[in-house]
Amino acid sequence: MRKQKFVKDSYVRMTELVLPNDTNTLNNLMGGKMMHWMDIVSAIAAQKHSNRIVVTASVDNVSFKESIKLGNVVTLEAQVTRAFSTSMEVHITVWAEDIPSGTKVKSNEAYFTFVALDENGNAVPVPEATPETDEEKEKYAGALRRRQLRLILAGRMKPNDANELKSIFNL
Amino acid sequence: MRKQKFVKDSYVRMTELVLPNDTNTLNNLMGGKMMHWMDIVSAIAAQKHSNRIVVTASVDNVSFKESIKLGNVVTLEAQVTRAFSTSMEVHITVWAEDIPSGTKVKSNEAYFTFVALDENGNAVPVPEATPETDEEKEKYAGALRRRQLRLILAGRMKPNDANELKSIFNL
Amino acid sequence: MRKQKFVKDSYVRMTELVLPNDTNTLNNLMGGKMMHWMDIVSAIAAQKHSNRIVVTASVDNVSFKESIKLGNVVTLEAQVTRAFSTSMEVHITVWAEDIPSGTKVKSNEAYFTFVALDENGNAVPVPEATPETDEEKEKYAGALRRRQLRLILAGRMKPNDANELKSIFNL
Amino acid sequence: MRKQKFVKDSYVRMTELVLPNDTNTLNNLMGGKMMHWMDIVSAIAAQKHSNRIVVTASVDNVSFKESIKLGNVVTLEAQVTRAFSTSMEVHITVWAEDIPSGTKVKSNEAYFTFVALDENGNAVPVPEATPETDEEKEKYAGALRRRQLRLILAGRMKPNDANELKSIFNL
Amino acid sequence: MRKQKFVKDSYVRMTELVLPNDTNTLNNLMGGKMMHWMDIVSAIAAQKHSNRIVVTASVDNVSFKESIKLGNVVTLEAQVTRAFSTSMEVHITVWAEDIPSGTKVKSNEAYFTFVALDENGNAVPVPEATPETDEEKEKYAGALRRRQLRLILAGRMKPNDANELKSIFNL
Amino acid sequence: MRKQKFVKDSYVRMTELVLPNDTNTLNNLMGGKMMHWMDIVSAIAAQKHSNRIVVTASVDNVSFKESIKLGNVVTLEAQVTRAFSTSMEVHITVWAEDIPSGTKVKSNEAYFTFVALDENGNAVPVPEATPETDEEKEKYAGALRRRQLRLILAGRMKPNDANELKSIFNL
Repeated sequence: MRKQKFVKDSYVRMTELVLPNDTNTLNNLMGGKMMHWMDIVSAIAAQKHSNRIVVTASVDNVSFKESIKLGNVVTLEAQVTRAFSTSMEVHITVWAEDIPSGTKVKSNEAYFTFVALDENGNAVPVPEATPETDEEKEKYAGALRRRQLRLILAGRMKPNDANELKSIFNL
Repeated sequence: MRKQKFVKDSYVRMTELVLPNDTNTLNNLMGGKMMHWMDIVSAIAAQKHSNRIVVTASVDNVSFKESIKLGNVVTLEAQVTRAFSTSMEVHITVWAEDIPSGTKVKSNEAYFTFVALDENGNAVPVPEATPETDEEKEKYAGALRRRQLRLILAGRMKPNDANELKSIFNL
Repeated sequence: MRKQKFVKDSYVRMTELVLPNDTNTLNNLMGGKMMHWMDIVSAIAAQKHSNRIVVTASVDNVSFKESIKLGNVVTLEAQVTRAFSTSMEVHITVWAEDIPSGTKVKSNEAYFTFVALDENGNAVPVPEATPETDEEKEKYAGALRRRQLRLILAGRMKPNDANELKSIFNL
Repeated sequence: MRKQKFVKDSYVRMTELVLPNDTNTLNNLMGGKMMHWMDIVSAIAAQKHSNRIVVTASVDNVSFKESIKLGNVVTLEAQVTRAFSTSMEVHITVWAEDIPSGTKVKSNEAYFTFVALDENGNAVPVPEATPETDEEKEKYAGALRRRQLRLILAGRMKPNDANELKSIFNL
Repeated sequence: MRKQKFVKDSYVRMTELVLPNDTNTLNNLMGGKMMHWMDIVSAIAAQKHSNRIVVTASVDNVSFKESIKLGNVVTLEAQVTRAFSTSMEVHITVWAEDIPSGTKVKSNEAYFTFVALDENGNAVPVPEATPETDEEKEKYAGALRRRQLRLILAGRMKPNDANELKSIFNL
Repeated sequence: MRKQKFVKDSYVRMTELVLPNDTNTLNNLMGGKMMHWMDIVSAIAAQKHSNRIVVTASVDNVSFKESIKLGNVVTLEAQVTRAFSTSMEVHITVWAEDIPSGTKVKSNEAYFTFVALDENGNAVPVPEATPETDEEKEKYAGALRRRQLRLILAGRMKPNDANELKSIFNL
């Protein structure tokens, strides 16, 4: 039988300081640097769940609402939401904090997907991911819908076959 | 009247060499590093169109099919597809090349959106972006549908109002 | 009256992946890179306690027992132990994890001291740091002894005046 | 018989320019970056003495008195003070120079200890280190006392057994 | 018979954004960073021509007339000019662009030479490089003269034997 | 009267460790990284002579004979050879050392030229540079010939006017 692990056991927290090279000429953190950090923190969460080397398979839509400034502290939290046969979806929350002024805002949320690999670079099965809290269960349920959207956007599923996804259009 | 610029005038090509620090322990390029490069090349395209400092507003779904290896040459091409009032959508194509073996594959495509800012960091209007070729016109037309998907995913539009997007579900 | 904050409110956790440029030719993490990470995580803890820009004032003895390898995940936890008038001592614990093999070891502990600065770079008073748990209280008490050792080593206190420190020699 | 080398033959001088990413938001060099440089320069000195790959074993107290600014030139000098069976103590002096204003100050001194390793990562014997000048002889003599302090602080020696160290308390 | 390739097939374009760590305290791009980029873009051109790993053999005189500022976009274009038995000369043109002000200037031109290596690090023959346009033919012809200058400057040819080079002195 | 400084007072020594990101896939140091280090060490020498911010004006031919490997220690020595009105020529010698095998070779020599700038970025006069040893005097004398070659190569002097340079062709 397939091994089970709790989603919370994959939880990772990472803290970064925004340095000059991470910013544009208005001293705002560049989006690409943020995504680089998101990729590292979520890859570690996927590694913890699978005990394997992992590679990024896809990144869902990310929107950048708040500008994050030079000198801010950025906290990233990542946790596996659901495991498929050889892949895992990871949810990431990003917080930006201006410590001298005492302000802290949630700046982004995102979903990254990873595939687990063996030493030869071949995909290998991963344990099931078991949600416990209500929030974890909700993210677990939504993972199917997000997966269908990814497959459609990658041209690997026909929109009409995406039953879970259609539901967001109340059809 | 609003200024017009051809989309092809925003074209940018960037070439990068995959170095050890860009790779995981299987010597594959990490997805986060790739997105960092995508962000820089598309920000430059948006700057060229708007002649402004720009900030990343959103990143659409990106999927990673091919593994790119240490020592490969990565070529990124970016071009604005359509301009909205203060924002621009940019399309990016990524090629990975193993020069000694002579293989070159298209590894990714992606859409990033940027907002143009003045010196005080406030959003400012950008010129219209005029497509010329068939491919440019198709990407221009699709930009509306992708924008609706972004707004829905960011919780800023109700799925039922997304007329262009619904069309992909043949309703 | 001087403001009070709980030491636990300064807690910071940072996670880093050991990349090729962080290692020597035996693929071991270099000590200097580790200390760079320790400095950043503990500076953030001191910033959280003081809501100020901080500068490193001193680093206590650090010993490196375990070798940490390329690809390992390094977790650093930092928390203020005690505040003096314008300075704060921060305790750091470092964990090294080889995720594919499932091993995790405590690799280091260290104490860094920071001074809080205003916008002009002058030292400013910081809130008192209140310990709650037994472990926090023990670290709070020991801070005085460590401070005397630092002052002696920096040539700013005579060994004979270091009453708390002398106690470790049972005199 | 064990090979002998003069301590001066391990002498290394390194010069670095303080760049934006090395500084905090007050444009002061961060302590962690300085320790990273100290580690590299002293590792090279230990390599020169032992003709081996070396790993950092411990770092003694470092205090940061002077703030070093963006654009300053930092000069680090390192030299082995004494060799033990498989380890070496290295003394480092750091100078900070503001060239346009013509000021140069000694900003730090520190002691780092390294272990010599063979290709399999096992500790190997190193040559004896012979001091010649008065200053070298004084550092050679003090190395024993500093080693006892390190062992006590690492919990590997009882304070009462540290005869050389006790002498600094004039007991 | 020796393989032939057109020089235009080695063409590479690279785009870089000037970030804080690339600049001195006047916010001008440092010459060394520029040369680092020149080396990467021209190495890729030489790799494309030879389908081999390449190493830099020499760099011709480079002069820096224009100062390039923080936030500028730097475009580098490289193309092989001529192949010798195991080496290739590459011509590089550098453009600096201040996008918000709409200015773009040619900032540098340079010639770098590379040697092609097999997997064991030994020099190997490369295809002939065939010029087509007038500009390519002129650079092809001049390559011999520049090669003689390199050999003289490296002390490997006597000035009197440099017939092509002498012609620039109208002798 | 113009201030005089001895050339030896501008002497700078820099030591660098070749890390993974500095090398190509054959583990050889990339030429561009070496030139980046050369630029920093020689800029510091020019700063020391002029007590000014300096910018790179030109780089003379550099040839790369020896391959330098991952883990090698690179030592760069720079010293001003001669000052012109607002510019200085700096000579750089580079040594590569494989410490475990005990080999050390001179890998490169080069000349870089810098212009001294005031706070507004305008060129300013620099002190005269006085040579003392025979080697310093020889480099001082040759500086005129190298300067003519630079001006010819930059298209700013006619070959027939380059009297000092012509002498190398024994005319």
